Amino acid sequence: MTNSTNSPSFQQALHQARLETNTLLETLLPLPTGYEKRVVEAMRYAAIGTGKALRPFLVLTIARLCHLSSITASRIAAALEMVHTYSLIHDDLPAMDNDTMRRGKPTVHIAFDEATAILAGDALLTQAFDILAAPETHPHAEIRCLLVQNLAQTAGKNGMIGGQMLDLIGEKTTYSLTEIERMQALKTGALLWYACLAPAMAAKASKSTQAALEQYARAIGLLFQITDDILDIEGSSKTMGKTLGKDITAHKSTFVSLLGMPDAKKLALELEQQALDALEPFGEEANLLRETVRYIMERDK
Amino acid sequence: MTNSTNSPSFQQALHQARLETNTLLETLLPLPTGYEKRVVEAMRYAAIGTGKALRPFLVLTIARLCHLSSITASRIAAALEMVHTYSLIHDDLPAMDNDTMRRGKPTVHIAFDEATAILAGDALLTQAFDILAAPETHPHAEIRCLLVQNLAQTAGKNGMIGGQMLDLIGEKTTYSLTEIERMQALKTGALLWYACLAPAMAAKASKSTQAALEQYARAIGLLFQITDDILDIEGSSKTMGKTLGKDITAHKSTFVSLLGMPDAKKLALELEQQALDALEPFGEEANLLRETVRYIMERDK
Repeated sequence: MTNSTNSPSFQQALHQARLETNTLLETLLPLPTGYEKRVVEAMRYAAIGTGKALRPFLVLTIARLCHLSSITASRIAAALEMVHTYSLIHDDLPAMDNDTMRRGKPTVHIAFDEATAILAGDALLTQAFDILAAPETHPHAEIRCLLVQNLAQTAGKNGMIGGQMLDLIGEKTTYSLTEIERMQALKTGALLWYACLAPAMAAKASKSTQAALEQYARAIGLLFQITDDILDIEGSSKTMGKTLGKDITAHKSTFVSLLGMPDAKKLALELEQQALDALEPFGEEANLLRETVRYIMERDK
Repeated sequence: MTNSTNSPSFQQALHQARLETNTLLETLLPLPTGYEKRVVEAMRYAAIGTGKALRPFLVLTIARLCHLSSITASRIAAALEMVHTYSLIHDDLPAMDNDTMRRGKPTVHIAFDEATAILAGDALLTQAFDILAAPETHPHAEIRCLLVQNLAQTAGKNGMIGGQMLDLIGEKTTYSLTEIERMQALKTGALLWYACLAPAMAAKASKSTQAALEQYARAIGLLFQITDDILDIEGSSKTMGKTLGKDITAHKSTFVSLLGMPDAKKLALELEQQALDALEPFGEEANLLRETVRYIMERDK
């Protein structure tokens, strides 16, 4: 999933975020001895792995930029990765997107069964809040509550889940460009927003820093989805590790179907610029975040 | 769902808990204007209603016993009711218990659709943690974090979800009495434990008070499931408001199938006594909790 135009230090940092998150997830998801271990096996199957871990990478990178303790950072990263993973498990279910492949391997309901997949998703979502609220995450309980509330709000009915509902309704409704943008801001953008803002909030970063990161988050959130739509047409199933061309088959409105490919690509370039502009105040320290923009643009290669 | 041997003041308090919880849920679940309102409609359909609200009732009753502020109590009650409701929605799904009726009306996946039911459950679970972590819930962030962590742990892989996994595996595995007890302690007992202990923790009740409530919670948790097994055979679909006789059809091990009806009823009486013994230290102030035991015993009438 890495690509040749990214620097070795970027690829190394992305890989490192995956390893660091895996290590913590291993500790957070020990296998119980009873029969219920099946649900934990499914949680581990989905959450621990070789997937790209973009969200943990963003959390850890921005944490360093904001001088946040590495323990706080890695626990935010693990909690967020759990929520992201739960959303993928439920999204892949037969009643939702009905996907059989994810991150290059069978989806949880295929590898286990549908009931176990539902429960594994539920359990990952639930545990994320336990992790954030735990004293180990941050010395100040006020900050931990803020992390919990923000994750619940970005992942909930007015955030990611709202976006997923819009996505489902979009299968039977023709959306305008504004509606597609709103759907994507909720569905994909919300958790990317949290990845960028949670470490800044936990580090009590200045308002201007948080505003800059907010602009960056919004730009890459939308960029991520536009490139996803482009990849759905131009990518290959092998490099993406999931079933492609589904949006066309489902006759869903996408950025590409509404704008046409050339304008979709043009919009992607504009968002790239917006994201880079947002990073201006940080100087060289934000180089990894600059490369992230390029990485999102070119992850099909 | 009320029964004639309970006092009018108990029936009034139970009814009041339902009304109070409904009022707060109305405020917490406003309908958005966008298409995503469908998921909120499903959340409201399942969470706001005429169901018995035993968990909110326990929270509110124990909160009064422990002199906890009524705002804290009602927010804990609403959060817990959301988690209980989410568990019912997901439990009723075709891939799980495949139930079509719940609380006297069609289950969420029947009234809406399966995808909306999955998302509505997810959103209720998510929002519960937002509610608990919010400053309005308690002036001390440490207490709010404690409420979040305890709910996540009782509802998660080592609590309710673990119990649901055991329940699913139990359809194909013959459990011993010890295993059935453990499954039920997790599946049903965990949230009842939270209903009894969360208000005590939030009120910083003494260790002896918490220990007494813990004994009470464990006894009624098990009692609840044993009477459920008894009702599955002896109850009527009309008074229970859900499909009955499913355990027999599914050849599941239950307290009744393992012990036989007479011994199951004898165990229920023993648990009743344990619950009443636990309330000894509270004197007359715990009368509503005493009636709750009888209510659980006789809710088929």
